[in-house]
Amino acid sequence: MGDQSNRSEFELIDAIRRGLPAEAAGVVVGSGDDAAVLDAGGRQVLVTTDTMVEGVHFRFDWSSHADVGRKAAATNLSDIGAMGGRSRWAVVAASLPAGYRDADVEAFVAGFRERLEAAGAALVGGDLTRSPGPWVLTVTLLGLAPEAGPLRRDAARPGDTIWIAGTLGDAALALRRLEAGERPPNTREPPWRALQAPSPPLAFAAALGESGRAHAAIDLSDGLVQDLGHVCRASGVAAEVALDRLPTSAVFRHFFGPGRGGDPWPLAAAGGEDYALLFTAPAEAEPALRQLLADSGDDVPLAAVGRIVAGDPAVRLTLDGAPYTLERGGWDHFG
Amino acid sequence: MGDQSNRSEFELIDAIRRGLPAEAAGVVVGSGDDAAVLDAGGRQVLVTTDTMVEGVHFRFDWSSHADVGRKAAATNLSDIGAMGGRSRWAVVAASLPAGYRDADVEAFVAGFRERLEAAGAALVGGDLTRSPGPWVLTVTLLGLAPEAGPLRRDAARPGDTIWIAGTLGDAALALRRLEAGERPPNTREPPWRALQAPSPPLAFAAALGESGRAHAAIDLSDGLVQDLGHVCRASGVAAEVALDRLPTSAVFRHFFGPGRGGDPWPLAAAGGEDYALLFTAPAEAEPALRQLLADSGDDVPLAAVGRIVAGDPAVRLTLDGAPYTLERGGWDHFG
Repeated sequence: MGDQSNRSEFELIDAIRRGLPAEAAGVVVGSGDDAAVLDAGGRQVLVTTDTMVEGVHFRFDWSSHADVGRKAAATNLSDIGAMGGRSRWAVVAASLPAGYRDADVEAFVAGFRERLEAAGAALVGGDLTRSPGPWVLTVTLLGLAPEAGPLRRDAARPGDTIWIAGTLGDAALALRRLEAGERPPNTREPPWRALQAPSPPLAFAAALGESGRAHAAIDLSDGLVQDLGHVCRASGVAAEVALDRLPTSAVFRHFFGPGRGGDPWPLAAAGGEDYALLFTAPAEAEPALRQLLADSGDDVPLAAVGRIVAGDPAVRLTLDGAPYTLERGGWDHFG
Repeated sequence: MGDQSNRSEFELIDAIRRGLPAEAAGVVVGSGDDAAVLDAGGRQVLVTTDTMVEGVHFRFDWSSHADVGRKAAATNLSDIGAMGGRSRWAVVAASLPAGYRDADVEAFVAGFRERLEAAGAALVGGDLTRSPGPWVLTVTLLGLAPEAGPLRRDAARPGDTIWIAGTLGDAALALRRLEAGERPPNTREPPWRALQAPSPPLAFAAALGESGRAHAAIDLSDGLVQDLGHVCRASGVAAEVALDRLPTSAVFRHFFGPGRGGDPWPLAAAGGEDYALLFTAPAEAEPALRQLLADSGDDVPLAAVGRIVAGDPAVRLTLDGAPYTLERGGWDHFG
């Protein structure tokens, strides 16, 4: 299938395979056998899987094939980071519509590998299938848990400060602008980059896991309110969040600035696709946390946005000290 | 999306999650966090991924949702088996079209889990997405390699006997009959079962891996000629196969029996989707191999079908001692 000049499935896979490094850490047998063979060295293994569907999670008139690859890597890397882990090995399954071009598949793989390998992980296998439907891209990523144990959702404790590493609302703002008819600009600035090729704070997340300083953690993919709600339900606690403390980009603040109107909080608190790291930790950990961030090299803000309190699971928002109610609870993929 | 009576994505995932066992071997944190946490106990980890697309790899008018689940498990279990490994943990990503029914998703998961758990493995995570296209089902399966090391494709040696555990051609025969307009019968007999819910010899494959008796192995998914060709290229050897020794079912032999016409060998040697195990081993291993099969409890034939010889990579077929040429080389998913 595909374009007339396309190679066969096997030739395309071979071309992708030949581009992989001959050796990668922990890879005993890479792509090309029935299964990859990995040496986890006795550590706990983390596994996450995430699918992106053309027309639902991305559009090729809004993102390049390489950026879709970067995002497919980033969303999964973000999950391993939110366990405090280090990503190591990935497999990618791509279902391709009739008329796909080899060059597009290779650009996707190149973008995917760029992000993956920058995070210290390797592509070790995959599957290519044809489909009567759109591009469907499923990444499964394996990582190693920190020796101190993974950062789980169910470990938030009353009294913890709620921290966010990263900015909120940029991806949702970019998406709303595209949906309103704006054309994607040829720029890597926020908010476009956040939507097209997010950069979760992976080095900080892994350092945080190894530090033993954090209690609970989750990656912000469905919006702060929804994802923090998962932490509250899993931990049996409530959360209080001050919207005015949410970390946002300068572009985001300008867009909703004085005289420009609009309410930034639905996007910042519930827009989704932030790929920032939310975690809880004792208040006294702040100096150590700021040092971990500085040492990690990740260029993101670290903001204390609220606290965990005892009580039935709930996320309570305030704006300048007064209670605030959002119109919707986040981004439901089936909404 | 989906039927009006459907629950939300989260509710459907929760329903699937609640049905999972509270504990499974090696699962430190199961579905419900950013990533599953697995304890590999210091062993080498095997990972394989495989996608099935509605309308390409299966049709719901030919297979039930539970059977599609069984097959999605079996194809991946077969890959881990072909490394001589034992399957342990799986994640499944399902992209669902508008109009899907919760009950169909749950039947798929039930069939998937039935096969997975019968093989000693557990479902530990997944992703549900909506799609404008057909059902796209991607399974990633993790297993543990045998202590003696995995059975690789590149380890065949001149003088080895080529063995097949399982039967060939049934699934291809069933597919051709359906494509010719026959309706799928309400039966679990071959050849239908082979197509709808294959049963690779997993216990034998794991025992073979642990025995150290085999050299190379591969699972037969794309047809004997194509898959054995992979072994030859990886190992730098040639193979000679006697078609008259290929293991086939009684139904298959009857279909092509005296007076009924037709050539069985393209289906048996190149039809694909056999999910039998091909491996090479020294000729003198036969008594030990037959004992391993008997002890495994797997009810499949074990046939010596040819031998590995020195020479440029090639698969040479004979029928009753005379050279035989197939019209096509196997099943190319993009063919």
